[in-house]
Amino acid sequence: VFFHSEDQFVGWLRRRWPERAAGLSLGIGDDAAIIRPRRGHDLVLTTDLSIETVHFRLDLHPPQAIGHRALARSLSDLAAMGAKPRYALLSLAFPRAAKRSWITAFYDGMDQLAARFGLTLIGGDTAVTGEAPVTADVIAVGEIKRGQALRRQGAKPGDLIYVTGRLGMAALGLSLLKAGSPERKAGAMPGSQNIARAALAAHLYPEPRCAVGQYLAKYRLASAAIDVSDGFARDLGRLCESSRCGARIWQDRLTPVVLIAGGAPRYDSLCIGLRSDSLHPLDLALHGGEDYELLFTVPRSKAARVPRSIAGIKLHRIGEITAERRLRLRAPDNQELALEPQGYDHFQERN
Amino acid sequence: VFFHSEDQFVGWLRRRWPERAAGLSLGIGDDAAIIRPRRGHDLVLTTDLSIETVHFRLDLHPPQAIGHRALARSLSDLAAMGAKPRYALLSLAFPRAAKRSWITAFYDGMDQLAARFGLTLIGGDTAVTGEAPVTADVIAVGEIKRGQALRRQGAKPGDLIYVTGRLGMAALGLSLLKAGSPERKAGAMPGSQNIARAALAAHLYPEPRCAVGQYLAKYRLASAAIDVSDGFARDLGRLCESSRCGARIWQDRLTPVVLIAGGAPRYDSLCIGLRSDSLHPLDLALHGGEDYELLFTVPRSKAARVPRSIAGIKLHRIGEITAERRLRLRAPDNQELALEPQGYDHFQERN
Repeated sequence: VFFHSEDQFVGWLRRRWPERAAGLSLGIGDDAAIIRPRRGHDLVLTTDLSIETVHFRLDLHPPQAIGHRALARSLSDLAAMGAKPRYALLSLAFPRAAKRSWITAFYDGMDQLAARFGLTLIGGDTAVTGEAPVTADVIAVGEIKRGQALRRQGAKPGDLIYVTGRLGMAALGLSLLKAGSPERKAGAMPGSQNIARAALAAHLYPEPRCAVGQYLAKYRLASAAIDVSDGFARDLGRLCESSRCGARIWQDRLTPVVLIAGGAPRYDSLCIGLRSDSLHPLDLALHGGEDYELLFTVPRSKAARVPRSIAGIKLHRIGEITAERRLRLRAPDNQELALEPQGYDHFQERN
Repeated sequence: VFFHSEDQFVGWLRRRWPERAAGLSLGIGDDAAIIRPRRGHDLVLTTDLSIETVHFRLDLHPPQAIGHRALARSLSDLAAMGAKPRYALLSLAFPRAAKRSWITAFYDGMDQLAARFGLTLIGGDTAVTGEAPVTADVIAVGEIKRGQALRRQGAKPGDLIYVTGRLGMAALGLSLLKAGSPERKAGAMPGSQNIARAALAAHLYPEPRCAVGQYLAKYRLASAAIDVSDGFARDLGRLCESSRCGARIWQDRLTPVVLIAGGAPRYDSLCIGLRSDSLHPLDLALHGGEDYELLFTVPRSKAARVPRSIAGIKLHRIGEITAERRLRLRAPDNQELALEPQGYDHFQERN
């Protein structure tokens, strides 16, 4: 037994998270937490499960990364609404055989991300199981000025479509991780190791785009927004479904956004190192999942006010909203193809 | 596949929970929910896990009861703070082989309890697993006038200790459930079937004491409060630990509170029916767990203002807070025994 009792465990958590946050009246260790919302602000609440074998594997993912990713999932939802992260609660179930060092590293990963975003852990629940998978449920509470929150609905035909960062990097990182010793296998071609490192980091330690979401909300630039968690095409489809519209993505504008931006030859050598031909960059970008980038729409009248980057994160204009309720990919030769969601869906068999 | 996609499942949830609640700006179906806190109010947040084999068994507990109990655990925490339930989020993981009828019944149980307390489901997450145990994490958000929330700390030596309802009923109900066909086995003695029924109901469909907690907070009667979820002695110990004090429980005042209130002979016949001698009523009351009653302390100067019952729930005065930091049980002959927590602790082996 690595902690003697639940009370001892809660005491350990309390020492990690003293009650120091503004607006927090009562944190860990009582029946519930108490927060004092700021006047004129709405609260944004989201919760995300991270389950062993479904969302991560103990043999592939270091505990720090598991903790980081569990929180990043929720923070990315707050980012998509434009909310500033404030508080989190964590429900954690782990088997009795879990090691204290694993638990500590898990919390380290979560805490380091939380600290960077000014977020305080204020409560949660813990269960020790026999052999059930490690399960974390992270509840994040964000704050935003009344009425400023971004939603999936609100995009209008003619609005321009933007995405942050690079699509497909996280999916490439996962493939590298599964292939094992990725940096060694990445081949001798100069530069491919850098791509491999960046892809692994994108998968293991994704960075929620909170600063971008908050900027878009504050300056009322975006007509709709969503985070790209289940694959670009699927999440674009959700934004369009909520907004009752369709979208046209310009492939030539998307190309610089996908992971091959570092150089196609280097990428090819990486894939040769992986002995895989299933990693077409465009496929990874459109369907890869777990990018935790932001996808948002901007009315054309506001397009001139959209900066090229926010807090160091590049914004790419990649398409436009259409009245016709379909997703289309326009190839460089102006042919248009249907863009079908192929990202991960819990209710369908895994690929 | 009982739902074709996650989006279809979310659509099903949205139809069950249209956005109708006051203060709710955005409910199920976006990246996060948005709530608009009322001026002059604090928000109280709590989350509780319910995991198959740890908190319930699929062969013993009907899905309605599992849904009801998952929410009741969180509502009981809100009750202990004196907060009015407002919103809930549910993270639910279930195996791919789960039946739609099971899921529906689970939500029915949760929804019926939620509706009675005026609570709206505003979001959550879902994961479909291979064969992992069914896991629910219920986040409840309550509201209370600024600064009125009850806490575990605040009890002072000389304060009187109260408890609501009946202790030990839920533990008896669980024993009956495990014994199988409990009503038939309850024996022929008139009345024992009623005890059995009440005990089963207390275990399967516990009623969070929200009205009591809100009353105590509103009239500022309680100096400290906690809900009795892990056994009376353990939770009393937690309240005392937080308040840096001890407690003396008067056994003769406790006796009418334990389940034998219905009549000792009838209870004995029930136990004979169960062929069990491990169900001593006092043991069940002190250590049984999952009562979801409220345990609270009141300064003597306010004792006259404590009603005998609130919203039909009886309040029992059963002891007093002491300066000496120990838990004591005073027997009818005035001998004092140490009261050691024996309730359930996740970090210790199960009994």
